[in-house]
Amino acid sequence: MPTADKATNIRAATAAIAAAAARGADVVVLPEMWHCPYGAASFPVHAEDVDGGKSPSADALAAAARAGNVVVVGGSVAERGQGGKLYNTALVYDSRGTLLAKHRKAHLFDIDIPGKITFRESDTLTAGDCVTVVDIGGGVILGVGICYDLRFPEYASLLVSKGASILVYPGAFNTTTGPAHWELLARARAVDAQAFVALCSPARDESAGYVAHGHSMVVDPWGVVLVDAGEKEGIVVADVDLSDVAARRAAMPLTAQRRRDMYELAETKKRG
Amino acid sequence: MPTADKATNIRAATAAIAAAAARGADVVVLPEMWHCPYGAASFPVHAEDVDGGKSPSADALAAAARAGNVVVVGGSVAERGQGGKLYNTALVYDSRGTLLAKHRKAHLFDIDIPGKITFRESDTLTAGDCVTVVDIGGGVILGVGICYDLRFPEYASLLVSKGASILVYPGAFNTTTGPAHWELLARARAVDAQAFVALCSPARDESAGYVAHGHSMVVDPWGVVLVDAGEKEGIVVADVDLSDVAARRAAMPLTAQRRRDMYELAETKKRG
Repeated sequence: MPTADKATNIRAATAAIAAAAARGADVVVLPEMWHCPYGAASFPVHAEDVDGGKSPSADALAAAARAGNVVVVGGSVAERGQGGKLYNTALVYDSRGTLLAKHRKAHLFDIDIPGKITFRESDTLTAGDCVTVVDIGGGVILGVGICYDLRFPEYASLLVSKGASILVYPGAFNTTTGPAHWELLARARAVDAQAFVALCSPARDESAGYVAHGHSMVVDPWGVVLVDAGEKEGIVVADVDLSDVAARRAAMPLTAQRRRDMYELAETKKRG
Repeated sequence: MPTADKATNIRAATAAIAAAAARGADVVVLPEMWHCPYGAASFPVHAEDVDGGKSPSADALAAAARAGNVVVVGGSVAERGQGGKLYNTALVYDSRGTLLAKHRKAHLFDIDIPGKITFRESDTLTAGDCVTVVDIGGGVILGVGICYDLRFPEYASLLVSKGASILVYPGAFNTTTGPAHWELLARARAVDAQAFVALCSPARDESAGYVAHGHSMVVDPWGVVLVDAGEKEGIVVADVDLSDVAARRAAMPLTAQRRRDMYELAETKKRG
């Protein structure tokens, strides 16, 4: 659970990465906005210049990846980019601490459910524009999205078309959307993509301005929830057997069965 | 539950449409392949020439729609088309018995899950090639798919882009895929599409060559299962309040939030 003190959050994340590595993890995922409270007032205060090399959060992730000899999908942080624009950004490091990829949340969380939850990320944040896959070696390609990106099946389909067999979404659904859709969407994306899906959320903190649902989880390609962290802070570890992806795709070859003569999903631009 | 005797099946379907109409239904959905046993050997035996006007099953649907003053989504039947090709076809009638649309299953059910279920519709059937929406009047557009079509989120997205607010999938998942994915996919398509989803399956018949999962259901745009028929034969009726679709889409404008500057889903051909 992020606090208002960034140094505390960085220490907690560093310790969590070390603990997961000690439990044998090869890939460690942190939650969305692990380094600051989730909120429009918080993002500008805590945003860091990652590209400019002035990011204590990025430095800590790189160091923790190296120290633990693990790949780190660094949840997300508030990033200050060119022209002062702010992004919700996931940083992915290899086990030597080299930055492999940067995913800026592509679908901003702008919703207004009367009497329940209203939030407009676009008031403070700028959307990224990349479909982000990361080759982490050993024939493993991660697809990366952040939170609201999960609601767009087209995005997941494109991750798969680029070779992803594990879809990783740091996220922070709330107590309205979380109970209704968090697990449902994780399982649905896994079944549609015939891929593992890992979601990582901050724990539930009823005293926070934005109360996250929690329930970090890993789902297998058949849609089975392998681990679920529940509401409380903690680390869950799942064995991800990629032969399961191959077997599911062989048994039910959905990619080949797509009717490209009827419809086509394509990237319209390539940037970044 | 379809039997090997088509006349019996037609009588049962006619009675079910009348019963649903008597319970106040405006739209009645039948299961996939309601007029014959589901199986490769059965399709050629029972296939009917709908376009040629030699289809007792189509005639019965039209008559039942007229008699009940209801729209009928006639599940699906085995259709013999031009050149003798066979299709898995849904016929949609308005309340005067006029044929509004014909959807030929676009994604054929070819799967091979070792030790569980192997089936190849493409051994006997030809796929249709239309994204089928039907304006049933009163500002209501149905999107129609059949069974395996449900596994393709692109297909559902296109139905929505063509104005559908109720997605109707006659289907017959089996006892392997049904418990794992039937409800999951119904709920996921509903949440992604922000639409109602109605699935209609034959009841479970353990003595059949192909054992259907059952569990006809209606799901609302928030992913809530409104009714579930269970395994046994029966009729379930749900109130479908289309203002719920409008409210969900206003609260979370997923269609407008799609990143068309990043990706685009488009029909590649228009036929039929």
